[in-house]
Amino acid sequence: MTASPLGISLGDPGGIGPEVAVKALAEALRQPGSRYVLFGAKSVYDEGRALLDLELEVKPWEGGPLPEAPGLYLADPGIPSGPVVMGGPSAENGRASFLWFEKAVEAAARGTIGAVVTAPVSKTSWRMAGLPWRGHTEYLESLYPGAIMTFWSDALNVALLSHHLPLKEALGRVRKVHLLDFFRSLHRALAARPSGVREILVAGLNPHAGEEGLLGVEEADEIRPAIEAAAGEGIPVDGPFPPDTLFLKALGKPGTLVVALYHDQGLIAFKTSSFHNGVNATLGLPFIRTSPDHGTAFDIAGRGIADPRSMLEAIRLAGRFAG
Amino acid sequence: MTASPLGISLGDPGGIGPEVAVKALAEALRQPGSRYVLFGAKSVYDEGRALLDLELEVKPWEGGPLPEAPGLYLADPGIPSGPVVMGGPSAENGRASFLWFEKAVEAAARGTIGAVVTAPVSKTSWRMAGLPWRGHTEYLESLYPGAIMTFWSDALNVALLSHHLPLKEALGRVRKVHLLDFFRSLHRALAARPSGVREILVAGLNPHAGEEGLLGVEEADEIRPAIEAAAGEGIPVDGPFPPDTLFLKALGKPGTLVVALYHDQGLIAFKTSSFHNGVNATLGLPFIRTSPDHGTAFDIAGRGIADPRSMLEAIRLAGRFAG
Repeated sequence: MTASPLGISLGDPGGIGPEVAVKALAEALRQPGSRYVLFGAKSVYDEGRALLDLELEVKPWEGGPLPEAPGLYLADPGIPSGPVVMGGPSAENGRASFLWFEKAVEAAARGTIGAVVTAPVSKTSWRMAGLPWRGHTEYLESLYPGAIMTFWSDALNVALLSHHLPLKEALGRVRKVHLLDFFRSLHRALAARPSGVREILVAGLNPHAGEEGLLGVEEADEIRPAIEAAAGEGIPVDGPFPPDTLFLKALGKPGTLVVALYHDQGLIAFKTSSFHNGVNATLGLPFIRTSPDHGTAFDIAGRGIADPRSMLEAIRLAGRFAG
Repeated sequence: MTASPLGISLGDPGGIGPEVAVKALAEALRQPGSRYVLFGAKSVYDEGRALLDLELEVKPWEGGPLPEAPGLYLADPGIPSGPVVMGGPSAENGRASFLWFEKAVEAAARGTIGAVVTAPVSKTSWRMAGLPWRGHTEYLESLYPGAIMTFWSDALNVALLSHHLPLKEALGRVRKVHLLDFFRSLHRALAARPSGVREILVAGLNPHAGEEGLLGVEEADEIRPAIEAAAGEGIPVDGPFPPDTLFLKALGKPGTLVVALYHDQGLIAFKTSSFHNGVNATLGLPFIRTSPDHGTAFDIAGRGIADPRSMLEAIRLAGRFAG
C-alpha cells in the first residue's frame, strides 16, 4: 500500500504506445496495492482497451493529492479533442504526446508520483508539432542538465557517457574532467536508488583499450586518470577494459553496470544481448523515468499484436527504483 | 578423398594452441578421407597428445608433394630444439610459432594445402622474438595488402573495414573511394569461395546512421555514395543501417554478412552474440586462413581444460571455404 504511485504517459497516439501501455498495465495491476496514473486522452485509452478486449477500471484524476486507494487513475489534459491519425506521424499527435509527458513530469517533480514510465513518442511528430526537443531524454536534459541515459535488462546494464551526437563529437567528450564528473553523477544516482549496482566497469575507447598505447592514447591520457581519481573518492569503478570483451564479461551480472563511451558502443552490446526486455532509464533526475527500448512501430499500430514485454519491464524497473 | 588438405599451425607452444589443435583434430579426423598437415615441433605435438591421453597417428612430412593417403601429417621445421616455457610469453616460443606459421603459409601459397588454420600465437612472444608483425593478420597483410578480416559464427558474419587502428584513425578510413575498393574486394573474395553469403549489409558510422544528417554527415557524404556505386556494379550491398539494430537484424542469417566500419563496432556485436564458436577468417588471400576467436590463454595452458570448440569451428570453416 505504501509503494510510490507510478505515472505512465501513453506516447504517440498513432503508434503502439497506448496498446503496450494498456497490455502492460493489465499485468502490472495484478500486484496488490499498486497505484498507477495514466497521462493521456480518455478516447485514446479507450481505443487501446477496446482493441484488446480488456476490462480495466480507470478513475479520473483532476490533479491535487492522489487518492490513497490502489488502482488506475487517468489524468486527461483534454487533447487531442478529435480523432487521431493512426500509423504515422502527425503534428496533432506530437502536441498530444508531448503534453501528456509534460504533465507526467510535472506530477513527478511535485512528488505526486515517484516515477514516469514513457510509452514511445515519434520524434517526427514532435518535429511536426514544432517542439525543439528530439525526444523524452532531450526534454529532461533541458530541465535537468545532469541527466544520464542508462539501459537495463536481465542480461546487461549500461550507462552512456554521451548519446545523440555524431561519433566524432562523442570522441571529443572523452576527457578526464568530463569523465570524472560523469562517474560522480552516476555513482550518486545509483546510490540514491535500490539499483543493486555494486561495480561500475568502464570501456576503453580504442581497440583492445589502446593496447598500452599502440592502438590509441585516450586510455592512458584521459580515461585511466579519471577512473583512478574516482576510485580514490570511493566510487567502485574499474577499467578501462577492451570494449569487445567487456560486455561479454558483464553479461548476466545484475550488480554490474558498464559505462560505454559513446552511443553505439553501449547500444550494439545492449540490443544484441537484450532482445525484447530492454528498458531505458534516465538517472540523475529528482524522480525516475523509464521507457521501453523500442519505438512507435507505426507499421503494426492499431492491430493488437504489439509485444508489451519491454513496457512491462519498464514499469517494473520504475517500481523497483522508486522504492 | 578429393577434399583439399588443410594445414594447422600449432600456435605459441606455451599457450593452449597445441592442446586445442590436438583435441579439435581428434574430432575432425573422424571425417573419412580428410588430410591435415600440422606445422609444429614433434615434441610439442607429443606433449599436447600426452596431456589428453589421445592416440593420433601422425606421419612425418618433409616437403615435396603431400601423399594422397588420408590422415595426419607433421611438418616439423626443427625448432624449438629444447623444452618450451609454458604459461607465459618467451622469445623462443615467438620464434617457433612464427616459423610454423610461415611454413604453413608457404605451403598454402604453393597450393600444397588449401587453407591454413592458425592456433593462437602470443603477440608478446612475437615482439620478444623481434618480429615486426603484431600477429597473423598483419603478417598476411604484409604479403597480401588486400587481406580482409572477417568473423563467422552460427549467429553472425562480420567483415571489418579496418581493425587494429586507434578509433580516430579508423574514422579517417571511412571515405567513399576506400569503401568502394573494400566492397569490391570483399565481394570478389566471397564470390570466389562457397561462402553462402548472398547479401552484404553495411553499418552506419554515427548513432542511428546519422539520422538524416542530424547526427553526422559521413553516411550521406561517403558511405551511401559508395554503397550506391557498388550496387550499380552488381554487388549485393545495402545500407547504411543504424549500427545498434543492424546486428540484431542479421543474427542467425547465414546468407548475410555485416560490414562494420571499425574494430569494436563489429567485434562488440560478434563477441556478445557468438560466445564459444566464433571463427576469424582472413579473406582476399590466394588461400583461406582461419583461426579460433580466442588467445593463448596462458593462465590455463598445460592443464588439459581448454575448450576446443572454436578451433574445431575454425577447421570446419576452412574446410568449407577451401572446398
